[in-house]
Amino acid sequence: MASLINTAISTSHELSNGTPAMRATSGEPDKSTSSTPAPARSSKRYRHTFAVHSVGRASCLSHDAPTTPSFLGFRNLMALVLIVSNLRLMIENFKKYGVLICIRCHDYRRQDVVYGSILYFLVPCHLFVAYIIELAAAQQAKGALARTKRADADQDKPGQQRKEQDEFRAAWYLIAFAHGINATLNLVIATVVVYYYIHHPGIGTLCELHAVIVWLKTCSYAFTNRDLRLSLLHPSDSDPVPELYKSCPYPQNITLRNLTYFWWAPTLVYQPVYPRTSHIRWMFVAKRCAEVVGLSIVIWIASAQYAAPLLQNSLGTISSLDIPSILERLMKLSTISLFCWLAGFFALFQSFLNALAEVTRFGDREFYGDWWNSSGVRGYWTSWNKPVFHFMKRHIYAPLVGRGFSPTAAQIMTFLFSGVLHELLVGVPTHNILGEQQYEPTIYVALIADHHTGVAFAGMVFQLPLIFITDPLAKMKGINGKLIGNLIFWISFCLVGQPLAALLYFFAWHARYGSASKPQLWR
Amino acid sequence: MASLINTAISTSHELSNGTPAMRATSGEPDKSTSSTPAPARSSKRYRHTFAVHSVGRASCLSHDAPTTPSFLGFRNLMALVLIVSNLRLMIENFKKYGVLICIRCHDYRRQDVVYGSILYFLVPCHLFVAYIIELAAAQQAKGALARTKRADADQDKPGQQRKEQDEFRAAWYLIAFAHGINATLNLVIATVVVYYYIHHPGIGTLCELHAVIVWLKTCSYAFTNRDLRLSLLHPSDSDPVPELYKSCPYPQNITLRNLTYFWWAPTLVYQPVYPRTSHIRWMFVAKRCAEVVGLSIVIWIASAQYAAPLLQNSLGTISSLDIPSILERLMKLSTISLFCWLAGFFALFQSFLNALAEVTRFGDREFYGDWWNSSGVRGYWTSWNKPVFHFMKRHIYAPLVGRGFSPTAAQIMTFLFSGVLHELLVGVPTHNILGEQQYEPTIYVALIADHHTGVAFAGMVFQLPLIFITDPLAKMKGINGKLIGNLIFWISFCLVGQPLAALLYFFAWHARYGSASKPQLWR
Repeated sequence: MASLINTAISTSHELSNGTPAMRATSGEPDKSTSSTPAPARSSKRYRHTFAVHSVGRASCLSHDAPTTPSFLGFRNLMALVLIVSNLRLMIENFKKYGVLICIRCHDYRRQDVVYGSILYFLVPCHLFVAYIIELAAAQQAKGALARTKRADADQDKPGQQRKEQDEFRAAWYLIAFAHGINATLNLVIATVVVYYYIHHPGIGTLCELHAVIVWLKTCSYAFTNRDLRLSLLHPSDSDPVPELYKSCPYPQNITLRNLTYFWWAPTLVYQPVYPRTSHIRWMFVAKRCAEVVGLSIVIWIASAQYAAPLLQNSLGTISSLDIPSILERLMKLSTISLFCWLAGFFALFQSFLNALAEVTRFGDREFYGDWWNSSGVRGYWTSWNKPVFHFMKRHIYAPLVGRGFSPTAAQIMTFLFSGVLHELLVGVPTHNILGEQQYEPTIYVALIADHHTGVAFAGMVFQLPLIFITDPLAKMKGINGKLIGNLIFWISFCLVGQPLAALLYFFAWHARYGSASKPQLWR
Repeated sequence: MASLINTAISTSHELSNGTPAMRATSGEPDKSTSSTPAPARSSKRYRHTFAVHSVGRASCLSHDAPTTPSFLGFRNLMALVLIVSNLRLMIENFKKYGVLICIRCHDYRRQDVVYGSILYFLVPCHLFVAYIIELAAAQQAKGALARTKRADADQDKPGQQRKEQDEFRAAWYLIAFAHGINATLNLVIATVVVYYYIHHPGIGTLCELHAVIVWLKTCSYAFTNRDLRLSLLHPSDSDPVPELYKSCPYPQNITLRNLTYFWWAPTLVYQPVYPRTSHIRWMFVAKRCAEVVGLSIVIWIASAQYAAPLLQNSLGTISSLDIPSILERLMKLSTISLFCWLAGFFALFQSFLNALAEVTRFGDREFYGDWWNSSGVRGYWTSWNKPVFHFMKRHIYAPLVGRGFSPTAAQIMTFLFSGVLHELLVGVPTHNILGEQQYEPTIYVALIADHHTGVAFAGMVFQLPLIFITDPLAKMKGINGKLIGNLIFWISFCLVGQPLAALLYFFAWHARYGSASKPQLWR
């Protein structure tokens, strides 16, 4: 009988000549990691009978499932779809407009370059004026210290002490007044020149940015040295000067060499001594410089080829007050402005500042935090631009709180100050502060231009309610609060944040004065 | 002298009346988690002097940084940009075409419904024919078993044994022939009716899908019972029937009740016994049904409002052989087809099959794995559709390997078989197999239609080289190989994979026979 069945098997079925060792590899093939069905290779005789459904299992997307599966693959898909859909828009753009990029046809006036060069050499002079003021103040402080020692030696001369007190106070006011005049002059001269004499918004922005940076450095230099002078004349054990400064105590730091280092160092906060690296890695500098050049070209292409025709197309739509159309335009604008902003952020804060820090052997490279993960608007403002954040905290927020202001009031004042700086940096080079119109504009352009006056300032001030709204979200337990906070941050960043505002400013300029490039193919 | 300096401080500076406890909270404020600058609240006297840059640190995006920061925020931004950019496209679409969705104007022929209903009742009959064949086979096996026992009792009758062997072999062939005729008839009848008599592609696909599912179930039922019968007649200790089947051994499982359960169970693989749940959660069923309905409506809107005009617009472009234009259209098409495919996948595999499993108290709900994370094309094919994968593995791949084919050859044959099934499911309902033209088409439409013949089959066969290319990537050490494999998977999935192929088939039908909806606003 056994032979009968074996014959039947051999006709309809394969020969069952598997060794026990081969059979041991079979079993539940669907329990393997599903990459290869190799276990079924064994020559099991009753192959069609194995129990595929042997235990109860839940679908991995069900709530019943013991673990949530990873969605890493969908992240990859999202990145892919984003790249593909933007490639598609690039093809669409190319078909519509052709190549808009033109190097030779960029148009700037000779006057702009002349005034820009003058400002470039004039602005740092104020830093050296501040140095001369501090040199005099240090001399005065050294004299006061010597007199104090003498006074401690021969006690009880009230008339003498009274006189010295008056002298000291007079010198104190004089120094503060001199610094104030010097710093204010810097900012006023640069702003007037940029606003009235520099037509090109790019050159204007560079000049204004340079002036604001040097102004902040001058302020930090004056404030820090004032407090260092105080701590020299009136040392306090409970509140010592930081350990780091011991290698260069107060009057020794007032040297031209020390100031020149601060002038070039990638920070806005003056310290007599900074953490330094041991040597310059030139390869590192070369890579960072290549990144700056590459990203600048990318941003230039993106704005000339994509942002410019888009904004031109949008002007009419936005003025038509047709809500779906305006939303559609805003969404398209925010994507390109976001891209330019992110590329610009990387070029400036990662590549350029790191290259500068490497050349100056500056140790503390924390120019930004991981602001993209911030679970609220506050987290963004305290981490995206650390140099400015450090300045604001050390020289504005902390002193205000020390003088008795509440932290909220101090924050509001910090943001108002920041708003004024932003308005200076964006409104002045685009000549949008006063809302005047030099050329005859179309009705659309006038509408846009009028609405832009003070956008940067308003944008900064608008951050305050956003901060107070998102603060509770960031403190919420669990992942949801953080996720919602992060989404609110991104939406506010993309729609009311800097990218769009900055772009709108530049293109309001563009719409009012015409293109900086001559051939306007897309008109 | 101390009073002198104190006077000076009180004029230009705040009063330093901080207690030691208050001072203790100050220190290095920028070392806090940068969420709130609270430490600066203490009334430190020399506030402008604290060392912001106290230690050397690397920028968090540099290679020098000790840890890579999280990019979770950018993932959120990607999701947001995707949603926003697609909202934008929806607004654009609405402005261009208005509302294209129309319930009443859907057009189907009465004949289609009649033939569809006949097929719906006719197809399962073949499963019951298979049951009757198995009932006869079980009787024959029971007789053979009884005769074997008798033969074991009175030994040595070679003539009798010879006769029985011939009888058994004849019965074996007869059963195989009967099953073959029954199953083939099922598929052939359904295919002929759908191809020649059902015009509407939706009704046709449903009928063809139903026939293929019942055909696969019939095959599994016949193969499994054949092997169970063998194991009854020739029990093997080294290769026993699975433990799970012990509660219902072979001839007892050939009942109408058992077959009816297999007919409705969400699996293509027959087992006498399945893991079962204890009770039906009707709330679960209701939720899953609601998901099916909701997603079906979403897919219908997406295809009617977005895919249909897009494909119509694309026909001219694709035939123009202008490469950038074709790429642009393909990218736009792949996004919408991907969306429809993902929604359809969820509706069918998660919602519908889970609802069905809950109603039938079917325990093993693993209808799919986390295919979206698969690091190669093979991982996708072994996990996206587990019911079909289980069938292919148990009834095609494993027997072929057992018969001595190499695993690679068995895989190729499995994919060829799968390709034929895909062609049946997509080519037959859209009448694209033979490439015949019933109506006079424009030159574009003919071009498209001609190129579509066999696309589904070719798509499946094309998976094979992709599998062999991506296999080494999935096995690579480190994250990069997996990432690249996943990206290749997604690209092949979106561009040559099912979504686009299926969409193209349906719209080739659409282009050849006209819209299933009457008013073609977008022509």
